[in-house]
Amino acid sequence: MRHLGSFLLRLLGGLATALLISAPGRAEDGYQLWLRYAALPQAEATALSRQAGRVLLPPKAGAMAQAAADELERGIAGLSGRKPVRGSTWQGPAVVLALPGQWSALQLLDADLKALREGGYVLRTMTAGGQRVTVIGAASERGLLYGSFAWLRALQTGADVARLDQRAEPKFVWRMLNHWDNLDRTVERGYAGQSIWNWWELPDMRSTRYRDYARANASLGINGVVLNNVNSKPEVLASDWLPKVAAIAEELRPYGQKVFLSVRFSSPKELGGLPNSDPANPAVRAWWQAKVDEVYRLIPDFGGFLVKANSEGQPGPHDYGRTHAEGAAPMADALRPHGGLLVWRAFVYSEADATDRAKQAYQQFVPWDGQFASNVVVQVKNGAIDFQPREPFHPMFGAMPKTQLGMEFQITKEYLGFATHLAYLGPMYEEVLRADTHQPGGNGPATVARILDGSFYGDGRVTMMAGVANVGSERNWSGSHFDQANWYVFGRMAWDPELKSDAIAREWVQQTFSVPQPARESIVQMMQGSREAVVNYMTPLGLHHLMATSHHYGPGLWVSELARPEWNPVYYHRADKSGIGFDRSARGSQAVSQYAPAVAARWGQPATTEPELLLWFHHLPWDYKLPSGQALWPGLIAHYDLGVQQVAAMRARWAQLQGVIDPERFADVAARLKAQERDAQWWRDASIAYFQSVNGLPLPAGVKPPALKLEDYKAHKLHYAP
Amino acid sequence: MRHLGSFLLRLLGGLATALLISAPGRAEDGYQLWLRYAALPQAEATALSRQAGRVLLPPKAGAMAQAAADELERGIAGLSGRKPVRGSTWQGPAVVLALPGQWSALQLLDADLKALREGGYVLRTMTAGGQRVTVIGAASERGLLYGSFAWLRALQTGADVARLDQRAEPKFVWRMLNHWDNLDRTVERGYAGQSIWNWWELPDMRSTRYRDYARANASLGINGVVLNNVNSKPEVLASDWLPKVAAIAEELRPYGQKVFLSVRFSSPKELGGLPNSDPANPAVRAWWQAKVDEVYRLIPDFGGFLVKANSEGQPGPHDYGRTHAEGAAPMADALRPHGGLLVWRAFVYSEADATDRAKQAYQQFVPWDGQFASNVVVQVKNGAIDFQPREPFHPMFGAMPKTQLGMEFQITKEYLGFATHLAYLGPMYEEVLRADTHQPGGNGPATVARILDGSFYGDGRVTMMAGVANVGSERNWSGSHFDQANWYVFGRMAWDPELKSDAIAREWVQQTFSVPQPARESIVQMMQGSREAVVNYMTPLGLHHLMATSHHYGPGLWVSELARPEWNPVYYHRADKSGIGFDRSARGSQAVSQYAPAVAARWGQPATTEPELLLWFHHLPWDYKLPSGQALWPGLIAHYDLGVQQVAAMRARWAQLQGVIDPERFADVAARLKAQERDAQWWRDASIAYFQSVNGLPLPAGVKPPALKLEDYKAHKLHYAP
Repeated sequence: MRHLGSFLLRLLGGLATALLISAPGRAEDGYQLWLRYAALPQAEATALSRQAGRVLLPPKAGAMAQAAADELERGIAGLSGRKPVRGSTWQGPAVVLALPGQWSALQLLDADLKALREGGYVLRTMTAGGQRVTVIGAASERGLLYGSFAWLRALQTGADVARLDQRAEPKFVWRMLNHWDNLDRTVERGYAGQSIWNWWELPDMRSTRYRDYARANASLGINGVVLNNVNSKPEVLASDWLPKVAAIAEELRPYGQKVFLSVRFSSPKELGGLPNSDPANPAVRAWWQAKVDEVYRLIPDFGGFLVKANSEGQPGPHDYGRTHAEGAAPMADALRPHGGLLVWRAFVYSEADATDRAKQAYQQFVPWDGQFASNVVVQVKNGAIDFQPREPFHPMFGAMPKTQLGMEFQITKEYLGFATHLAYLGPMYEEVLRADTHQPGGNGPATVARILDGSFYGDGRVTMMAGVANVGSERNWSGSHFDQANWYVFGRMAWDPELKSDAIAREWVQQTFSVPQPARESIVQMMQGSREAVVNYMTPLGLHHLMATSHHYGPGLWVSELARPEWNPVYYHRADKSGIGFDRSARGSQAVSQYAPAVAARWGQPATTEPELLLWFHHLPWDYKLPSGQALWPGLIAHYDLGVQQVAAMRARWAQLQGVIDPERFADVAARLKAQERDAQWWRDASIAYFQSVNGLPLPAGVKPPALKLEDYKAHKLHYAP
Repeated sequence: MRHLGSFLLRLLGGLATALLISAPGRAEDGYQLWLRYAALPQAEATALSRQAGRVLLPPKAGAMAQAAADELERGIAGLSGRKPVRGSTWQGPAVVLALPGQWSALQLLDADLKALREGGYVLRTMTAGGQRVTVIGAASERGLLYGSFAWLRALQTGADVARLDQRAEPKFVWRMLNHWDNLDRTVERGYAGQSIWNWWELPDMRSTRYRDYARANASLGINGVVLNNVNSKPEVLASDWLPKVAAIAEELRPYGQKVFLSVRFSSPKELGGLPNSDPANPAVRAWWQAKVDEVYRLIPDFGGFLVKANSEGQPGPHDYGRTHAEGAAPMADALRPHGGLLVWRAFVYSEADATDRAKQAYQQFVPWDGQFASNVVVQVKNGAIDFQPREPFHPMFGAMPKTQLGMEFQITKEYLGFATHLAYLGPMYEEVLRADTHQPGGNGPATVARILDGSFYGDGRVTMMAGVANVGSERNWSGSHFDQANWYVFGRMAWDPELKSDAIAREWVQQTFSVPQPARESIVQMMQGSREAVVNYMTPLGLHHLMATSHHYGPGLWVSELARPEWNPVYYHRADKSGIGFDRSARGSQAVSQYAPAVAARWGQPATTEPELLLWFHHLPWDYKLPSGQALWPGLIAHYDLGVQQVAAMRARWAQLQGVIDPERFADVAARLKAQERDAQWWRDASIAYFQSVNGLPLPAGVKPPALKLEDYKAHKLHYAP
C-alpha cells in the first residue's frame, strides 16, 4: 500500500508537471468557438464516461462517419475527461452511429431512419441487443455527422442524455455561407482580419484552420460555402487557380460542405478571350459549358455558382439587352448535367432608375417569374435596401411563386457597428422570418420562413438560406467573441427557421462560456436586447442608411453631395423644416404597392404602420403624434437616448460578470462595450445635432444637448476604416 | 494509507481530466516561438526546481523588473514543471534579480554591475549570504530583463546552470525592427498575414499579441520598433491617430521597447495645411516642433522618426533643392530636446540618374559627411541595390566617418521566396558584417560590423542595426516556422554582430524544436546551407534583380519593357550573344571606385573578384574561364543545378525527421519544402531557357533541358501575389 502511495505521488507529480506546461495554451482566446467541450461537473462526467466510453461505427464507414466519430471522441474526451474507445462490436454501453441495415440490434429503427430527409437524424437512448446504447441514427452519413454534433450540443445544454429521444431534419435544402473574400485575401465588409483562405499558399500549404472551420459549419448543418466575393474576378475560374479551389473542397468534404464560386458574368470575354459575354452567343454558352466541365473534372461534387449581375457596376445580361433569366440560362444549363446549382442575386442596385431604390429588385425580377431554370435559386436580401439594422421584409418574398427564392442575410455587421458593437442578430433574423407576407398561392400561413423553406408551396422545390459570413483570419474567427453568436444563430435558423432566437442564444452561451445561472441568463438578456439598442441609437422609427460614406460605421446624416442621389443619407431620411421620412405610400414612391394587399394597406397609412417602420414608409411632420402619445421630434430623441441607455445597461451587466467569465474574454468584451457606449453617444448626439439644424426645433425639457457642434461631427473622420 | 491511496486516485483522476481537456490547446502552432519552455528531462527539471524554486526581486521593482520576474516564472514553470515562488527575503536557493546596492549579500558584485553598459547583464551561480543563488545582475532594470531571458536561453541550450558565469553587453545602442505596416493593416512585402497592429481597433481594444510580441523582442534585446511603413502617410501623425500609437507604446514599454514612427516628409503641407514642406521655411520648422512636442506629451519616451525621402516617388528635400542633411534638420532639431532620434534612410532610388542604380546612395550622401545633426542616424541597406540574395557590402560603410551610419537588413524575404522558401538569413548577415571595408580612419579591422557598432571609431557615437520585420498576424507570426529563425538571428546579431550564424541557428533550434541530437544538428545544417541554395537557383555568380515584375517571387529575366531602365532585369544581367554581367569596373559604370582602394582593386578585375560576385562587377564572355576551370556558361548552369539539388537534399533531410518533429510543424515545413523544390526547378529551367535564347549556345552534355519552352515561362503569371 505504501508502495502504491509513493507510485501515485510520483505519477501525480508528473501529471502536475504536464499540466503546468500546458497551461499557457489554455487561454480562452475564442479559437474553439462553441466547440470547447469544457469539462462537465464530476458526477455528470463520470456518468458520461460510463455511458459513452465506447463509440461504435460500422466497418466501411466513409469520410463523414469518420469525421462524426472524430468529433464524438474529441467531445467526450473534453466533457468527461476520458477518451472513448472506438470499436465495432456490440458489448457494453456505447454511442452507436447507425445507418439503416448496419446493426442487427437496431433493426427496428431502420424504417424510421430511412424516412429521414438528407441530413436528418435521430438521437435515442435505448436498450438494444442487451446493451444500453445511445443511438445516433440517420439515413446517410451526413445525418450521422449532424447528429453527432447535435448530441454533443445536447450534452452541453443540459439535456437528460440518459433518456434522450430527439428527431430533427433540416428545413432548407441549402444552408449556405457566402464569403465576400477577395483573391488578394482582403475581405469586403470583413471585420475579422483577412480571408481564412490563404489563396497565395494554396494548394501547396493547407492551414489547419480549414478543418476547424468546416467542423464549426458542420456543427450547424451548413452544407454549402461560396468561397469568394460576389464582386468577383475572372481569375477565380482560371485553370491555374482552380487547384486552389479543389484543395479547399478537399478540406471541407469530410464535413459535408460543397464549395461554390462567385463568378463574373463577363468571364467568357475577360478570361476566355471571346468578343463578348452575351448569353445569346453560342460561343459564350459553349465557353461556360467547357469551363464548368473543367471544374467538375477537378471537383466532382462542386456546388455551383453565385452571380451578382448588373448591380453596383458589375457586368450582367442588361449589357446585352437580356433579362436576368436569359443571363442565367447559359450557366444554369452548363451546371445542370453535373447537378450544380446556380444562385442568382436579386440585389440589383442599378445605374438607371433612382425614384426609389427599394423598388428596383422587385421591378427587375417579378415580371419574369417562372422563367428561371430548375437549378436556379434567386437569392433575395432580407430587405429591399441593404442590411440595415431594421428593414421591413423584402417585397419579393411570396411575389414569385414559380421561382425558387432564397434568403440572403448578412452575418458580418456592415451596418451594425462592425465587430466593435455587440449586436446579436437572432432577433432580427427571427423578425423577418416570422413576418407574414399575406401572399396567396400556398397552404397555411405565408410567413417568410414558410415561403422560403417551401412548406407554403409544398412542391419539393430547391430551397436555400444564405448568410454573408463574418469569418476571417483573426484568432477568434469573427473579430469579437459575441460575433461568433451571429455565425451560430444564422446556422441554426438555416437549419430550422422556426427556432427561437433566445433559445439559440441560450445554447450558444452554454457552450461558449460554460457559466452557471444567473450569469447565463444575464448574457442571454444582454444579447436579446442588443440589436434593438443599435436600431435606437443609429436608425430608430424606420430611419435607414444614415451611415457615413463608404465605411458605414459612424453617422453621416448630412451627406448630400455624392454623385448619385441614393448614395446620400439625405435621400433616405428626407428631413426638412416640415417633417422627416421616406414616403413610400400611394402618395409617394408607391413602394408599398409591391406588397400583398393586406400588407400594402397596413403600411400604406401612418396610423396602421408600426412605429418601428414609420419613417420607412411615411414622411411625417415633426409634431406627428406617435402611438405613445409623444410628438415625433421628442419621440425620436427618446429613442436615441434609450439606445445609449441600453448600451450602458449592457456594460453594467457585463461588468457584474467579472470573475465569472475568464479574464481574457471578459476584458475583450468589456473594452468593446466601452467603445460601443461612446459610439452610441456619438450617433445620438450627431443625429440630434443634425436634425435640429434642419427643423430648428428646441430640445424638449430635460434633454441633454449634443456634446459638440454639428460641424464637429461633420469634421470627424475615421482614417483607414476597414 | 488506504485512505490516502484513494484520495490520490481521485486527485489523479481530476488531474488527468484537466490534462485531457487542455490537450487541444497544446498543438505546436508556432505561436510560442522560441519561448516554448518545454519540459526538461526529469533529472534536470528536479535540479532546476531545487535551484530556482524562488525568484527574488527587490521591493520597489519597476515595470521592467516585474516583466523579468514574470518571464522567469513562466520559464521555470514550463521547464521544471513547478511554478517558483516570488519573494524578497534571502533564504534558501533562489534566482535573484540584482541591481547595484539592492542586496547586501551581493555587495561585492556592485562594482561589476555598475560597470555594465545599458542593457548588459551578468549571470552567475554563487554562494552569497550563506545561500546558493543564481544572480541575474545588471546596472538597470533593462539588463535584468535581458539577463532573465538570457538565463532561460542558457537553461534550454545545455549550459551548466549550476556553474554559470556569463557577462554580456549589447554592441549597438539601437537594436531596431522596422515594420513596413500600413495604416489600413496591409503590410508591404509582408508574407505573414496582416499587420499585427490592429489600427482600427486601437486604442480601445488591445490584442494580447502585443505583449507576446514585446516578449519575443525583449528576449533578443530589441529596444526600438518602427511601427509603420517607410512609405508613410501623413495621418500617422494626426492628433486623432496618435492615441493608437500611445497604446502600443504602453504595451511595449515594460519590455523595454520604444516606439518610432515612419513619417512623411510632406506632412507639414499635407497634414498641417502649410503651403509647402520646405525645410528652410520657418513655418515648417515650427510645425515639426509643435507636432513633436505633441507626440511627447502623449508618449514621454517616444523613440523618434524614420524617414524615406526622395526615393521611389516619396517627397523629400530635393523637391525644394535642399540636401538630405538640410531636409533632416527640422525634424532632428524638434526631436533633440526630447532625446528623440531621427533615422534617415540612404535607400534613395531616384527618378533621375540611371547610369548605375548601385551608385546613387553614395553619390547623394557621402559628399555631405559630417553635416547631419548629432541625433541623426543614416540607415543604409546592406547592399547598394535592394536586399538581393547576395550583394557585396554597401560602399557607404566606412565612407562617412563623421556620420552615424546604421544597418538596414531585410528580415522579410522579399527576394528570397517569401515565407514559402526556407532560407535562413544568418549566413547572409554574417557575410556582410564580417566583410572588411579596408576603409581608413579608425582602429583595428575595418569590418562592416566594427564600423557600424562604433568600435572602429571609438568615439561613443549613436549606433544602430535595423531589420525590416517579417512579423504579421499569422498564428506563427512569420508565415512559416523557419522564418521565425530570421527574426531571431537578426535580433541576436543586432545584440552582438560577432556571433556566429551556426551557433545562433543551434540555439534557435534547441529552443524551438526541443529535439535531441542528431536531429538538432541536421536542422542546423539544413538552415546553414539554405541561403546559398537560393542564390544558386535564383541568382548565382553575382547575378541580381532578375525577379518578375512587382511581386519579386518568380523569375522575370526577360522583362525589358518597363518604363525606367533600372526596373528591368535585363538592365542588371545585360546578357547578350557575347556575354553576361554588369560591368561596374573602371571600364564600366565605375561603381567599384566607391569602395576603398584595396577593395576597388580586388573587385576591379575579374581575376581577383570572388566567383560569388563575378557578374555583379563584370561583363564577361560566355566562355570566360571560372576559377573552377569551367567555362562561364556550363559553370552558370552547374550553379542552377546545384541549387535544385540542395533543395532536394533539404527535403530529404526533413523527411527523415518525421516522428521526431511534432506532426503539425513537420507537415507544414514539408509542404513548403515541396513547393520550394518545384520553384527552384522553375527558376533553373526558366533561367537556362532564357539565357540560351540569348546566347544561342547548346547545353553541355548531360544537362537536362528545361521542361518547357521559354514562352511558357514568360506566360506563367502568378495571380494576386502578395
